[in-house]
Parts: sequence; structure tokens; C-alpha cells
Amino acid sequence: MHDAVHRTEHALAAGLPPAETLPTHLHEALRYAALGGGKRIRPLLCQAAGALVDAPPDALDATGAAIEMVHVYSLVHDDLPAMDDDDLRRGKPTVHVAYDEATAILVGDALQAQAFLTLSELPLPAERRIALVRELAQAAGSRQLVGGQAIDLQSAGRSLSQPALEQMHRMKTGALIRAAVRMGALCGAADVPANAALYRALDDYSSAIGLAFQVVDDILDATADTATLGKTAGKDAYDDKPTCVSMLGLDASRTLARTLNARAHAALTPFGERAARLGQLADLVVQRAH
Amino acid sequence: MHDAVHRTEHALAAGLPPAETLPTHLHEALRYAALGGGKRIRPLLCQAAGALVDAPPDALDATGAAIEMVHVYSLVHDDLPAMDDDDLRRGKPTVHVAYDEATAILVGDALQAQAFLTLSELPLPAERRIALVRELAQAAGSRQLVGGQAIDLQSAGRSLSQPALEQMHRMKTGALIRAAVRMGALCGAADVPANAALYRALDDYSSAIGLAFQVVDDILDATADTATLGKTAGKDAYDDKPTCVSMLGLDASRTLARTLNARAHAALTPFGERAARLGQLADLVVQRAH
Repeated sequence: MHDAVHRTEHALAAGLPPAETLPTHLHEALRYAALGGGKRIRPLLCQAAGALVDAPPDALDATGAAIEMVHVYSLVHDDLPAMDDDDLRRGKPTVHVAYDEATAILVGDALQAQAFLTLSELPLPAERRIALVRELAQAAGSRQLVGGQAIDLQSAGRSLSQPALEQMHRMKTGALIRAAVRMGALCGAADVPANAALYRALDDYSSAIGLAFQVVDDILDATADTATLGKTAGKDAYDDKPTCVSMLGLDASRTLARTLNARAHAALTPFGERAARLGQLADLVVQRAH
Repeated sequence: MHDAVHRTEHALAAGLPPAETLPTHLHEALRYAALGGGKRIRPLLCQAAGALVDAPPDALDATGAAIEMVHVYSLVHDDLPAMDDDDLRRGKPTVHVAYDEATAILVGDALQAQAFLTLSELPLPAERRIALVRELAQAAGSRQLVGGQAIDLQSAGRSLSQPALEQMHRMKTGALIRAAVRMGALCGAADVPANAALYRALDDYSSAIGLAFQVVDDILDATADTATLGKTAGKDAYDDKPTCVSMLGLDASRTLARTLNARAHAALTPFGERAARLGQLADLVVQRAH
């Protein structure tokens, strides 16, 4: 796992323009936002899913980096004053605090473009690359990632039903996690129509860990301190946002996380030992402390 | 020309999620930002360049729409309070005024993703589609469009040399215009290595009209009124931004625009009558009143 994080870090550092690229102010901020922090769960998922289908490691690393660029851009924009207004992320001042608001907006915009540029230049056949672009663009768009954030912002101070809350999390967090897993498999030339059972199992796995990820996030927001989290703790309650914990309570939330972990492992059964890394990642998602 | 604008409008309306897609608030704002306004110069350039190489019209229309989505997203973000802080665009309240700041940020983010999704689904071979993705991602990234906006923001209140000013405009405006022309040719299966002379001529044309576009923008900002422009007039002087007019004066700026138009026409000479539409577009760029 440590090696895989290291490879992601390296792929990100190599995949972003150097800090001395003009305008340097923007490129320094861009690297500040993307490098040296984060759990890198999406790239790890991409690499682990790719291992199922013997995908080439260099393509997996770059694909994981592209997915992480989209994830980081979404965090940089979510933290803006007009959105969640957060000062701390991954234990460091957020981009608009360390630089300024305009730079944070531009950093996010540039990271999204860089993600698609990275996919377009992968060492894979054009058919593979364009399938990856499509998968990422769908997950990042207004029907998924961006739409989920829009619903999250509108929901502050309102009560959502549990199905509505789960739908919001599926869009905001689940879609990119699902895409990361599918994109790993796509790197290994596993066409979707020809491998329907594979993608169905991977989607089952992803939907379980995607929701588990959010449940654990809610538990940590309610129970951990800011230093451990690397971002402001207790933010959801402060913002009066509906969370799993506010709706179900702590105990039921913990039970739900364990159930979802079991569901993720069950989805991996057909793959046997080859899915060991995906299994470890499910455990990591549920047992993480930040 | 009117027909081509109509086709772009139609491709944009069809290429964006319907307004009733959830979350509806976001999708209404997205369509508000993108539809019913704008000169659509980039899609027109894409269509006209595609006509040189007999590119399929439906692919050209969708490609032009994707380029326009990136252009619109950049306007929506540039208009934000943390950036240029503009209230009026294309004769309507800007997105953050008509909706709110968070929605405007998300609309821009979603439009960029939708642009790449559109390219990934074009009715063209995968090789073509991925070349188009690469071209657009390069033009939209931190080395071009976003980098140009970063330099523009930093330059307020400072004097830039004329070469530095031209470099900023090449990044901020020129890159996407160049990409629009090149992408039209790419739709017609004109590979870059096999058609070096074609792309060299098109790049000469694009760099001339890209700069002309900006020169005319500066002239109009200094001379036209807000109602004609559909955006706030006199904004550059108010923001103390270096412009072509503030550096060269009005007369020399007008001469420069004519010289650039002549250069654009000269670049088209090898293509004869087939380049008539590109020639008309150069005239339109220089002679426009808003």
C-alpha cells in the first residue's frame, strides 16, 4: 500500500506542470493543492482494480493521478468562501487562504483540464483513452460530482430523507470512487460490454465502499479532533448539514459502516486472491482515523 | 453565417443536460449561462475550418458546442466577484448575480466536464476524438486559458510591456481560438504530422485573428457603451488594466487591427475559395461592434 501511494505521488508530481512554468504563482499554487497530502484512496482503487485485469502499471499510475486531480480540484472549490468556507485541508491552510480566492478558483479549473490532458496522453490505444475520458467526464459532471455538491449546499439547514441523503452522497463521493475502480479495469483493456459481470461486481463493490466512505466521514466529523482530521472537525453540525450521524446516531452509523464493508467483500468473492488489494482498501476506508 | 450560429445554438441546447435534470437549480443555471447569447465565434471558426477538409457537419457542430462550453465556463468564472467582478454579460445579469456565487462556480465546473464528455461521444473514430480532447485540454489548461487569466488578474494596476501583454492575450484568448480552428480540421481526419503545412497556415490565421479579437475588444471597451456591448463598458480603465488602447492609443490600435486582418487573409491564400468562410470570420472579428 505504501508503495502504491508513493507511485501516485510520483505520477502526480510528474503529471503537473513544473512550479517554474509561467505564470509561476498559479503553478506553485497548483502543486501546493495537489502534492504532499491526502489518502490517495481513488488512485489506490484504480491501481487495485487494474491489478485484477493485468493493466499496465504506468498507465494505471497516470490514470490514478488524473482522477486525483479531479478530486483535488473539487476539494479546492468546495473549500471556497462561497461554498463550504473551510480554512484547513489535509492539515494545511486551504488554497484560498494560502494564496487568494481567485487563485483557488483558477487552480481548480486548471486541475480539471490537466486531468483530461493526462488521460489523452496515456500510453494506451486511443480506444482505451477515450473510454477513460468518457468515464471521468461523466463522474465529474453536473449529474454526479458537481450535482452532488450543489445538492449538499442546498441541503444546509434542511432535513433530507435518508434516500435523498444517500443519493447526494452517491453523486458527490460515490461517482468518482466508482469511476476510479472502473477506470482501473478499463486500463486493462476490459471492455464494458464484453465484461458485464466484471463491471457489475466492481460497481457493487464501489457503491458499498463509496457509501461507507461517507458514513465514516460523518462519524469522524462528529468524533475526531481537527488535528487528527487535518480539516475542521464538527463542521457538519456547525453548518447544520444533515449527516448519517445526525439521522441514525453514532452506534447505528458504525453498524452501517461494518455492513457496507461486508457487502464490499462479498462483491469481490468471484475474484478470489486477485482482489486482495481491493479488499484491503475496503477495510482501510472503514477503519481509517482521518 | 446565420445558419451556422443556429446550428451551434442547437448543438449546445442538445449537448447540455435538460433543465429538469436533478439538481434542477444547477441545470437551469447551466443552460442560462450557455444558451441564448454570445457571438459563437469559436464554433463558427471550428465549422469553417472543418469545411476546408470536408469534416462531417454533425461532428463539427458538437465539437463547436464543446469549445463554446469551455469558453462560457471561463466567462462565468472570470465574472465572479473574486475575479473581474462583473454584473453583466451578453446583455444579461451574470450567473452569480442571477443565481449565486456557489452556483456560478459549479456551473463553470460542470460546463468544463460536459465539454470533454461531448468530445468523448462524438460520431468520429476514437483516434479523432482523443486528438480533439488533447487539443482542448491543452488550450484550456494552466499554460494557456487559465494561465492567461491568472496573468491578467495579476497585471491590474501594473504596466506590462507590449510583448508581455500580447503573450497574456495569446494565452487567455488566442489559445482557444487557435484550438477551435485546429479542432475543425481534426474533425476532418487531417492528422497533424501528415498535414504540417495546413496546420501552419491555420495557426498563422488563428494567431492573427486571436490578437485582432483582443485589440478590437480593447477598442470597444474604450469607445462603445454598455448597452451595445452587453457587458460593462470602460471596465479596463476602471480596473487600471493595461490594454492595447492604453498603450498604443486608439488610432494605432485601429491600424493594428486592420494589419492583423490582412495577415489573416494572407494566411488563407493557399486554400483559395474553400477558405471563404474563414476569411469572412476574420472580417467579422475586426468589424464587429460588440
